Amino acid sequence: MQTLQAYIHGLLQPYNQATLHISDLAIQRGYGIFDFFKVTEGKPMFLDDYLARFYRSAERMEMVVPIDEAALRDTIAQLIKANNLPLSGVKIILTGGYSSNGYDPEKPNLILTEQPLTLPDQTIVNNGIKVITHSHVRELPTIKTINYAMGIRLIREIRAAGAADALYHQNGIVSEFPRCNFFIVTKDETIVTPAENVLPGVTRKNVLQLAARKYKTEERTITIADIAQAREAFLTSTTKRILPIVQVDDKIIGTGKPGEITKELLADLIELEKRQL
Amino acid sequence: MQTLQAYIHGLLQPYNQATLHISDLAIQRGYGIFDFFKVTEGKPMFLDDYLARFYRSAERMEMVVPIDEAALRDTIAQLIKANNLPLSGVKIILTGGYSSNGYDPEKPNLILTEQPLTLPDQTIVNNGIKVITHSHVRELPTIKTINYAMGIRLIREIRAAGAADALYHQNGIVSEFPRCNFFIVTKDETIVTPAENVLPGVTRKNVLQLAARKYKTEERTITIADIAQAREAFLTSTTKRILPIVQVDDKIIGTGKPGEITKELLADLIELEKRQL
Repeated sequence: MQTLQAYIHGLLQPYNQATLHISDLAIQRGYGIFDFFKVTEGKPMFLDDYLARFYRSAERMEMVVPIDEAALRDTIAQLIKANNLPLSGVKIILTGGYSSNGYDPEKPNLILTEQPLTLPDQTIVNNGIKVITHSHVRELPTIKTINYAMGIRLIREIRAAGAADALYHQNGIVSEFPRCNFFIVTKDETIVTPAENVLPGVTRKNVLQLAARKYKTEERTITIADIAQAREAFLTSTTKRILPIVQVDDKIIGTGKPGEITKELLADLIELEKRQL
Repeated sequence: MQTLQAYIHGLLQPYNQATLHISDLAIQRGYGIFDFFKVTEGKPMFLDDYLARFYRSAERMEMVVPIDEAALRDTIAQLIKANNLPLSGVKIILTGGYSSNGYDPEKPNLILTEQPLTLPDQTIVNNGIKVITHSHVRELPTIKTINYAMGIRLIREIRAAGAADALYHQNGIVSEFPRCNFFIVTKDETIVTPAENVLPGVTRKNVLQLAARKYKTEERTITIADIAQAREAFLTSTTKRILPIVQVDDKIIGTGKPGEITKELLADLIELEKRQL
């Protein structure tokens, strides 16, 4: 089995030897940001968007990325070359650094990892997924922090419900999944996604742009009542692309099968990805 | 300088060599809980309360502590003996463990560290502190998770305001500080602390019990307007004990000097700690 390389402490080294001292603020205080993009045949997909978001997250958490964007791009290229994987995900993590008092941030630690990526099983894409709803708004929803305490805590509840994910809402206004954005297609074929309290997903942005070529699109408030009236629903993410949602809690969406517009947008997204190669 | 020992991966080892692999969910997803108690002359203070809270936090995050309470007490005793510090804080951290997919929890990693502790400077106790308010409620306030993203992000704002800490509130209803509980003394000498959206602090509990011997005590809603009417205000924490608050935002509390009841409760708390020895 191939030994994967990671980037940590300023150099490439074997992933399985990549460690942080326990004084790091990620371990002490859950303090860090990250980003994650897909690499197909050695080519990072939509890298500009992901890097822009990474530096924006760092700035909004008052963290300084130890290398500039050109050097980070070089490092990404070296990592991809070293690992030489056909399809992978690259994760860039920036932690709060080794803190002498366990609270005040120091010079951040920058870590890059690359792992083989598995796309969603075609059966799941064909059948669609059930999701549950959960009352919650992330603390800093527009920043890609490492805080997934609520999402991970919900894993058992999601599985117990026979569901694939949990859609956050507050007072019936829905926002996002722990790791995915949410869309509905209304009866009049408008593509709608929540405007507030969401991470600005790169796939979300791409899907909005693709949809706007053919349909009316809106970023606005979506309520649970709106979902019950929707013709179609789906989620978007870097690794999952577009997954049709056929059930939200006890409510069947549309015909209970993946919608035609959802499938069309997924085909368009795959085309868009191919054009990145 | 003495080499401090820490407990990690099932054994005592030098603190400066204590590392976690980057696949740990604390680093990947900020997933972990912890607790922290004071050790005076080798004697842990109020250990039963801290351990009960630690195991409760773990359970509520669906994490299993790898050793039982008796074994954990033994490990704490070994660590304290090895380091032999006159006054210290012991931190117990439980992380989500080495996750193969970076999201699903595995067997948690248990870490114990011990560091010399510095009590607040007497000048600060004598003069009291200024605090600012910030609109925020922690995600899982009753669980001692490692997530301090908001608190750390506020460090700069707190310093810029010449303040010592930030008091969280939502719609004017106050809850707690990032690492401390909040109390007011009303004009009729009732000791009041917020009832909801707060971490159940051990010092908070001790102070409530000490106060109840002499005064009426209440756990209830406190608004920012209530603070403006308060005779005294203070915060409590394991390391800070009781710190008088003399200003909240632009509002001077009482006479602008530490209150008499606050000072009395601090003396009572120090007495209570001595009785633990």
